[in-house]
Amino acid sequence: MLKRVEVKTNSRVQLIDITAHIKSQLRSENFSSGVVFVYVPHTTCGITINENVDPTVKEDILSVLGSLIPENGHYRHLEGNSDAHMKASLIGSSVTVFVESGALVLGTWQGIYLAEFDGPRKRSVLLKIVPD
Amino acid sequence: MLKRVEVKTNSRVQLIDITAHIKSQLRSENFSSGVVFVYVPHTTCGITINENVDPTVKEDILSVLGSLIPENGHYRHLEGNSDAHMKASLIGSSVTVFVESGALVLGTWQGIYLAEFDGPRKRSVLLKIVPD
Amino acid sequence: MLKRVEVKTNSRVQLIDITAHIKSQLRSENFSSGVVFVYVPHTTCGITINENVDPTVKEDILSVLGSLIPENGHYRHLEGNSDAHMKASLIGSSVTVFVESGALVLGTWQGIYLAEFDGPRKRSVLLKIVPD
Repeated sequence: MLKRVEVKTNSRVQLIDITAHIKSQLRSENFSSGVVFVYVPHTTCGITINENVDPTVKEDILSVLGSLIPENGHYRHLEGNSDAHMKASLIGSSVTVFVESGALVLGTWQGIYLAEFDGPRKRSVLLKIVPD
Repeated sequence: MLKRVEVKTNSRVQLIDITAHIKSQLRSENFSSGVVFVYVPHTTCGITINENVDPTVKEDILSVLGSLIPENGHYRHLEGNSDAHMKASLIGSSVTVFVESGALVLGTWQGIYLAEFDGPRKRSVLLKIVPD
Repeated sequence: MLKRVEVKTNSRVQLIDITAHIKSQLRSENFSSGVVFVYVPHTTCGITINENVDPTVKEDILSVLGSLIPENGHYRHLEGNSDAHMKASLIGSSVTVFVESGALVLGTWQGIYLAEFDGPRKRSVLLKIVPD
Protein backbone atom coordinates (compact mmCIF):
# COMPACT_ATOMS: atom_id res chain seq x y z
CA MET A 1 0.00 0.00 0.00
CA LEU A 2 1.16 3.53 -0.75
CA LYS A 3 1.57 5.68 2.37
CA ARG A 4 1.92 9.45 2.42
CA VAL A 5 3.44 11.82 4.97
CA GLU A 6 3.10 15.58 4.61
CA VAL A 7 6.09 17.67 5.74
CA LYS A 8 6.24 21.45 6.07
CA THR A 9 9.68 22.95 5.56
CA ASN A 10 10.67 26.28 7.09
CA SER A 11 13.54 27.73 5.09
CA ARG A 12 15.09 27.57 1.63
CA VAL A 13 17.55 24.81 2.50
CA GLN A 14 16.94 22.47 5.41
CA LEU A 15 17.43 18.88 6.55
CA ILE A 16 14.33 17.69 8.42
CA ASP A 17 14.42 14.46 10.39
CA ILE A 18 11.40 12.38 9.27
CA THR A 19 12.42 9.11 10.98
CA ALA A 20 9.59 9.32 13.54
CA HIS A 21 7.01 9.79 10.75
CA ILE A 22 8.26 6.68 8.99
CA LYS A 23 8.29 4.63 12.19
CA SER A 24 4.74 5.75 12.86
CA GLN A 25 3.55 4.67 9.41
CA LEU A 26 5.28 1.34 9.85
CA ARG A 27 3.59 0.72 13.21
CA SER A 28 0.19 1.30 11.64
CA GLU A 29 0.82 -1.72 9.39
CA ASN A 30 0.98 -5.28 10.65
CA PHE A 31 4.32 -5.76 8.92
CA SER A 32 7.16 -7.94 10.12
CA SER A 33 10.09 -8.16 7.69
CA GLY A 34 11.08 -6.53 4.41
CA VAL A 35 12.13 -3.21 2.94
CA VAL A 36 10.70 0.31 3.18
CA PHE A 37 11.26 2.71 0.30
CA VAL A 38 11.02 6.43 1.12
CA TYR A 39 10.42 8.65 -1.93
CA VAL A 40 9.76 12.31 -2.71
CA PRO A 41 7.64 13.16 -5.81
CA HIS A 42 9.50 16.47 -6.20
CA THR A 43 12.48 17.73 -8.21
CA THR A 44 13.94 20.32 -5.82
CA CYS A 45 14.24 18.23 -2.66
CA GLY A 46 15.66 14.81 -1.85
CA ILE A 47 15.90 12.10 0.79
CA THR A 48 19.10 11.16 2.61
CA ILE A 49 20.29 9.24 5.67
CA ASN A 50 22.81 10.88 7.99
CA GLU A 51 23.78 11.61 11.60
CA ASN A 52 20.86 12.24 13.96
CA VAL A 53 22.62 13.66 17.03
CA ASP A 54 24.91 16.64 16.48
CA PRO A 55 22.95 19.30 14.52
CA THR A 56 26.18 20.81 13.16
CA VAL A 57 26.47 17.87 10.77
CA LYS A 58 23.30 19.04 9.02
CA GLU A 59 24.60 22.61 8.89
CA ASP A 60 27.91 21.48 7.40
CA ILE A 61 26.23 19.33 4.75
CA LEU A 62 23.99 22.20 3.62
CA SER A 63 26.89 24.65 3.77
CA VAL A 64 29.24 22.52 1.66
CA LEU A 65 26.48 21.80 -0.88
CA GLY A 66 25.79 25.53 -1.08
CA SER A 67 29.46 26.28 -1.70
CA LEU A 68 29.78 23.67 -4.45
CA ILE A 69 26.48 24.60 -6.10
CA PRO A 70 25.69 28.26 -5.30
CA GLU A 71 22.14 29.57 -5.44
CA ASN A 72 23.21 32.46 -7.67
CA GLY A 73 25.39 30.75 -10.25
CA HIS A 74 25.39 31.25 -14.01
CA TYR A 75 22.35 29.16 -14.80
CA ARG A 76 20.13 29.04 -17.88
CA HIS A 77 16.99 27.96 -15.98
CA LEU A 78 15.26 31.21 -15.06
CA GLU A 79 13.22 30.18 -12.01
CA GLY A 80 16.11 30.83 -9.61
CA ASN A 81 16.22 27.25 -8.36
CA SER A 82 18.69 25.51 -10.67
CA ASP A 83 20.91 24.82 -7.68
CA ALA A 84 17.99 23.03 -6.01
CA HIS A 85 17.42 20.74 -9.02
CA MET A 86 21.13 19.90 -9.11
CA LYS A 87 21.31 19.15 -5.38
CA ALA A 88 18.19 16.98 -5.64
CA SER A 89 19.85 14.78 -8.28
CA LEU A 90 23.04 14.48 -6.21
CA ILE A 91 21.25 13.56 -2.98
CA GLY A 92 18.64 11.39 -4.72
CA SER A 93 14.87 11.08 -4.61
CA SER A 94 14.64 8.00 -2.40
CA VAL A 95 16.29 5.85 0.25
CA THR A 96 15.98 2.15 1.03
CA VAL A 97 15.65 1.05 4.67
CA PHE A 98 15.29 -2.50 6.02
CA VAL A 99 12.61 -3.77 8.42
CA GLU A 100 13.09 -6.64 10.87
CA SER A 101 10.60 -7.74 13.57
CA GLY A 102 8.41 -4.80 12.62
CA ALA A 103 11.15 -2.19 13.29
CA LEU A 104 13.39 -0.08 11.04
CA VAL A 105 16.96 -1.40 10.87
CA LEU A 106 18.93 1.83 11.34
CA GLY A 107 22.44 2.32 12.68
CA THR A 108 22.80 3.99 16.08
CA TRP A 109 23.49 7.41 14.56
CA GLN A 110 21.29 7.17 11.48
CA GLY A 111 18.26 9.35 10.87
CA ILE A 112 16.20 9.70 7.68
CA TYR A 113 16.04 13.26 6.37
CA LEU A 114 13.99 15.23 3.89
CA ALA A 115 16.57 17.47 2.19
CA GLU A 116 14.80 20.71 1.24
CA PHE A 117 16.62 22.81 -1.37
CA ASP A 118 13.87 25.23 -2.53
CA GLY A 119 11.65 25.90 0.50
CA PRO A 120 9.82 26.83 2.49
CA ARG A 121 7.15 24.52 1.05
CA LYS A 122 4.76 21.73 1.83
CA ARG A 123 6.31 18.46 0.69
CA SER A 124 4.94 14.95 0.31
CA VAL A 125 6.95 11.91 1.33
CA LEU A 126 5.69 8.60 -0.10
CA LEU A 127 6.35 5.15 1.37
CA LYS A 128 6.10 1.63 0.00
CA ILE A 129 6.66 -1.41 2.20
CA VAL A 130 7.68 -4.61 0.41
CA PRO A 131 7.93 -7.98 2.21
CA ASP A 132 11.02 -10.16 1.77
CA MET B 1 11.06 -10.74 -14.73
CA LEU B 2 14.03 -8.76 -15.97
CA LYS B 3 13.16 -6.19 -18.64
CA ARG B 4 15.63 -4.43 -20.88
CA VAL B 5 15.41 -1.14 -22.78
CA GLU B 6 18.11 -0.11 -25.25
CA VAL B 7 18.93 3.62 -25.40
CA LYS B 8 21.18 5.37 -27.92
CA THR B 9 22.89 8.50 -26.63
CA ASN B 10 24.03 11.26 -28.97
CA SER B 11 26.76 13.24 -27.24
CA ARG B 12 29.42 12.87 -24.52
CA VAL B 13 27.20 14.17 -21.73
CA GLN B 14 23.42 14.08 -22.01
CA LEU B 15 20.26 13.58 -19.95
CA ILE B 16 17.78 11.45 -21.91
CA ASP B 17 14.18 11.15 -20.73
CA ILE B 18 13.36 7.42 -20.59
CA THR B 19 10.05 7.74 -18.73
CA ALA B 20 7.99 6.69 -21.76
CA HIS B 21 10.11 3.54 -22.23
CA ILE B 22 9.52 2.54 -18.62
CA LYS B 23 5.78 3.21 -18.83
CA SER B 24 5.66 1.09 -21.97
CA GLN B 25 7.42 -1.85 -20.27
CA LEU B 26 5.07 -1.54 -17.31
CA ARG B 27 1.98 -1.62 -19.54
CA SER B 28 3.18 -4.85 -21.16
CA GLU B 29 2.95 -6.51 -17.73
CA ASN B 30 -0.31 -7.21 -15.93
CA PHE B 31 1.02 -5.49 -12.83
CA SER B 32 -1.02 -3.54 -10.32
CA SER B 33 0.95 -2.35 -7.29
CA GLY B 34 4.57 -2.36 -6.17
CA VAL B 35 7.95 -0.89 -6.98
CA VAL B 36 9.94 -0.57 -10.22
CA PHE B 37 13.74 -0.48 -10.04
CA VAL B 38 15.52 1.14 -12.99
CA TYR B 39 19.20 0.15 -13.29
CA VAL B 40 22.13 0.71 -15.67
CA PRO B 41 24.78 -2.06 -15.94
CA HIS B 42 27.43 0.55 -16.81
CA THR B 43 30.06 2.52 -14.89
CA THR B 44 30.12 5.78 -16.88
CA CYS B 45 26.42 6.63 -16.89
CA GLY B 46 23.71 6.81 -14.24
CA ILE B 47 19.98 7.12 -13.64
CA THR B 48 18.32 10.15 -12.06
CA ILE B 49 14.91 11.74 -11.60
CA ASN B 50 14.48 15.43 -12.34
CA GLU B 51 12.35 18.11 -14.00
CA ASN B 52 10.70 17.07 -17.27
CA VAL B 53 9.52 20.42 -18.67
CA ASP B 54 12.12 23.18 -18.99
CA PRO B 55 15.12 21.75 -20.91
CA THR B 56 17.45 24.32 -19.33
CA VAL B 57 17.33 22.33 -16.09
CA LYS B 58 19.10 19.46 -17.83
CA GLU B 59 21.67 21.84 -19.33
CA ASP B 60 22.37 23.40 -15.92
CA ILE B 61 22.79 20.03 -14.22
CA LEU B 62 25.28 18.83 -16.83
CA SER B 63 27.07 22.18 -16.81
CA VAL B 64 27.48 22.30 -13.01
CA LEU B 65 28.63 18.67 -12.92
CA GLY B 66 31.16 19.48 -15.65
CA SER B 67 32.49 22.45 -13.68
CA LEU B 68 32.86 20.45 -10.46
CA ILE B 69 34.39 17.41 -12.19
CA PRO B 70 36.10 18.57 -15.39
CA GLU B 71 36.73 16.15 -18.27
CA ASN B 72 40.40 17.15 -18.40
CA GLY B 73 41.42 17.08 -14.75
CA HIS B 74 44.57 15.59 -13.23
CA TYR B 75 43.47 11.96 -13.29
CA ARG B 76 45.49 8.76 -13.02
CA HIS B 77 43.04 6.66 -15.07
CA LEU B 78 44.31 6.95 -18.65
CA GLU B 79 41.15 6.27 -20.66
CA GLY B 80 40.07 9.92 -20.56
CA ASN B 81 36.79 9.17 -18.78
CA SER B 82 37.62 9.45 -15.09
CA ASP B 83 35.16 12.32 -14.79
CA ALA B 84 32.45 10.01 -16.16
CA HIS B 85 33.14 7.31 -13.55
CA MET B 86 33.02 9.92 -10.79
CA LYS B 87 29.76 11.46 -12.02
CA ALA B 88 28.21 7.99 -12.31
CA SER B 89 28.92 7.28 -8.63
CA LEU B 90 27.49 10.66 -7.59
CA ILE B 91 24.29 10.30 -9.62
CA GLY B 92 23.90 6.59 -8.88
CA SER B 93 23.26 3.49 -10.94
CA SER B 94 19.55 3.09 -10.16
CA VAL B 95 16.33 4.77 -9.10
CA THR B 96 13.29 3.44 -7.27
CA VAL B 97 9.80 4.36 -8.53
CA PHE B 98 6.45 3.30 -7.11
CA VAL B 99 3.55 1.74 -9.02
CA GLU B 100 -0.13 2.10 -8.08
CA SER B 101 -3.10 0.86 -10.14
CA GLY B 102 -0.69 -0.17 -12.86
CA ALA B 103 0.79 3.34 -13.29
CA LEU B 104 4.08 4.96 -12.24
CA VAL B 105 3.70 7.25 -9.21
CA LEU B 106 5.66 10.30 -10.39
CA GLY B 107 5.33 13.90 -9.30
CA THR B 108 3.90 16.37 -11.83
CA TRP B 109 7.34 17.57 -12.91
CA GLN B 110 9.28 14.33 -12.53
CA GLY B 111 10.87 12.47 -15.41
CA ILE B 112 13.29 9.52 -15.28
CA TYR B 113 16.59 10.19 -17.04
CA LEU B 114 19.51 8.20 -18.29
CA ALA B 115 22.52 10.37 -17.43
CA GLU B 116 25.18 9.79 -20.09
CA PHE B 117 28.68 10.90 -19.11
CA ASP B 118 30.86 9.13 -21.71
CA GLY B 119 28.82 8.95 -24.90
CA PRO B 120 27.75 8.72 -27.56
CA ARG B 121 27.03 5.04 -26.92
CA LYS B 122 24.38 2.37 -26.90
CA ARG B 123 23.27 1.84 -23.30
CA SER B 124 21.10 -0.80 -21.67
CA VAL B 125 18.56 0.08 -19.01
CA LEU B 126 17.33 -2.85 -16.91
CA LEU B 127 14.03 -3.01 -15.01
CA LYS B 128 12.73 -5.18 -12.22
CA ILE B 129 9.16 -4.94 -10.98
CA VAL B 130 8.49 -6.14 -7.44
CA PRO B 131 4.96 -6.46 -5.99
CA ASP B 132 4.16 -5.03 -2.57
CA MET C 1 16.15 -12.61 5.90
CA LEU C 2 18.66 -10.00 6.97
CA LYS C 3 22.25 -10.89 6.09
CA ARG C 4 25.34 -9.24 7.49
CA VAL C 5 28.90 -8.97 6.16
CA GLU C 6 31.70 -7.50 8.28
CA VAL C 7 34.33 -5.46 6.43
CA LYS C 8 37.59 -4.11 7.85
CA THR C 9 38.86 -0.94 6.19
CA ASN C 10 42.53 0.00 6.21
CA SER C 11 42.80 3.76 5.67
CA ARG C 12 40.80 6.95 6.13
CA VAL C 13 39.34 6.93 2.63
CA GLN C 14 39.09 3.75 0.61
CA LEU C 15 36.92 1.93 -1.92
CA ILE C 16 36.74 -1.79 -1.05
CA ASP C 17 35.30 -4.28 -3.53
CA ILE C 18 32.66 -6.31 -1.65
CA THR C 19 31.14 -8.04 -4.69
CA ALA C 20 32.52 -11.46 -3.74
CA HIS C 21 31.01 -11.18 -0.24
CA ILE C 22 27.60 -10.43 -1.70
CA LYS C 23 27.82 -13.27 -4.22
CA SER C 24 28.77 -15.60 -1.38
CA GLN C 25 25.76 -14.56 0.72
CA LEU C 26 23.51 -15.00 -2.29
CA ARG C 27 24.80 -18.52 -2.96
CA SER C 28 24.01 -19.52 0.62
CA GLU C 29 20.34 -18.81 -0.10
CA ASN C 30 18.21 -20.90 -2.43
CA PHE C 31 17.15 -17.78 -4.28
CA SER C 32 16.35 -17.54 -7.97
CA SER C 33 15.06 -14.14 -9.08
CA GLY C 34 14.57 -10.73 -7.48
CA VAL C 35 16.48 -7.80 -6.08
CA VAL C 36 19.32 -7.53 -3.55
CA PHE C 37 19.62 -4.36 -1.48
CA VAL C 38 23.07 -3.61 -0.03
CA TYR C 39 23.02 -1.17 2.89
CA VAL C 40 25.47 0.33 5.41
CA PRO C 41 24.11 1.28 8.89
CA HIS C 42 26.74 4.03 9.17
CA THR C 43 26.86 7.78 8.49
CA THR C 44 30.49 8.20 7.39
CA CYS C 45 30.69 5.55 4.69
CA GLY C 46 28.55 4.61 1.70
CA ILE C 47 27.94 2.02 -0.99
CA THR C 48 28.57 2.57 -4.69
CA ILE C 49 28.92 0.63 -7.93
CA ASN C 50 31.85 1.40 -10.23
CA GLU C 51 34.64 -0.03 -12.39
CA ASN C 52 36.23 -3.22 -11.08
CA VAL C 53 39.36 -3.50 -13.24
CA ASP C 54 41.67 -0.48 -13.35
CA PRO C 55 42.46 0.52 -9.74
CA THR C 56 43.22 4.12 -10.81
CA VAL C 57 39.46 4.70 -11.18
CA LYS C 58 39.08 4.22 -7.42
CA GLU C 59 41.99 6.55 -6.73
CA ASP C 60 40.55 9.24 -9.01
CA ILE C 61 37.10 9.03 -7.42
CA LEU C 62 38.53 9.40 -3.91
CA SER C 63 40.88 12.17 -5.03
CA VAL C 64 38.16 14.23 -6.73
CA LEU C 65 35.82 13.80 -3.74
CA GLY C 66 38.65 14.93 -1.46
CA SER C 67 39.26 18.03 -3.57
CA LEU C 68 35.58 18.99 -3.64
CA ILE C 69 35.02 18.26 0.07
CA PRO C 70 38.35 18.65 1.90
CA GLU C 71 38.98 16.92 5.22
CA ASN C 72 40.11 20.20 6.79
CA GLY C 73 37.42 22.64 5.66
CA HIS C 74 35.64 25.29 7.71
CA TYR C 75 33.19 22.98 9.45
CA ARG C 76 31.08 23.46 12.55
CA HIS C 77 31.00 19.76 13.49
CA LEU C 78 33.99 19.29 15.80
CA GLU C 79 34.74 15.59 15.38
CA GLY C 80 36.96 16.16 12.34
CA ASN C 81 34.83 14.03 10.03
CA SER C 82 32.32 16.46 8.54
CA ASP C 83 33.73 15.73 5.10
CA ALA C 84 32.98 12.03 5.67
CA HIS C 85 29.31 12.72 6.54
CA MET C 86 28.94 14.87 3.44
CA LYS C 87 30.55 12.30 1.13
CA ALA C 88 28.33 9.57 2.63
CA SER C 89 25.18 11.51 1.70
CA LEU C 90 26.47 12.15 -1.84
CA ILE C 91 27.44 8.52 -2.49
CA GLY C 92 24.41 7.10 -0.67
CA SER C 93 23.86 4.44 1.97
CA SER C 94 22.65 1.66 -0.33
CA VAL C 95 22.61 0.19 -3.82
CA THR C 96 20.08 -1.96 -5.62
CA VAL C 97 21.27 -4.97 -7.65
CA PHE C 98 19.18 -7.45 -9.61
CA VAL C 99 19.29 -11.25 -9.37
CA GLU C 100 18.45 -13.65 -12.20
CA SER C 101 18.88 -17.45 -12.15
CA GLY C 102 20.48 -17.12 -8.73
CA ALA C 103 23.25 -14.76 -9.93
CA LEU C 104 23.87 -11.02 -9.57
CA VAL C 105 23.06 -9.06 -12.75
CA LEU C 106 26.13 -6.83 -13.01
CA GLY C 107 27.66 -5.20 -16.06
CA THR C 108 31.02 -6.52 -17.26
CA TRP C 109 32.96 -3.75 -15.51
CA GLN C 110 30.76 -3.30 -12.45
CA GLY C 111 31.85 -4.04 -8.91
CA ILE C 112 30.05 -3.18 -5.66
CA TYR C 113 32.15 -1.06 -3.30
CA LEU C 114 32.07 -0.03 0.33
CA ALA C 115 33.15 3.63 0.25
CA GLU C 116 35.03 4.34 3.47
CA PHE C 117 35.37 8.04 4.32
CA ASP C 118 36.36 7.93 8.03
CA GLY C 119 38.45 4.78 8.53
CA PRO C 120 40.18 2.66 9.34
CA ARG C 121 37.21 0.94 11.00
CA LYS C 122 35.18 -2.23 11.16
CA ARG C 123 32.03 -1.74 9.09
CA SER C 124 28.86 -3.76 8.73
CA VAL C 125 27.20 -4.28 5.37
CA LEU C 126 23.58 -5.47 5.52
CA LEU C 127 21.72 -7.32 2.76
CA LYS C 128 18.07 -7.98 2.05
CA ILE C 129 16.96 -10.20 -0.81
CA VAL C 130 13.43 -9.62 -2.13
CA PRO C 131 11.80 -11.92 -4.71
CA ASP C 132 10.10 -10.47 -7.78
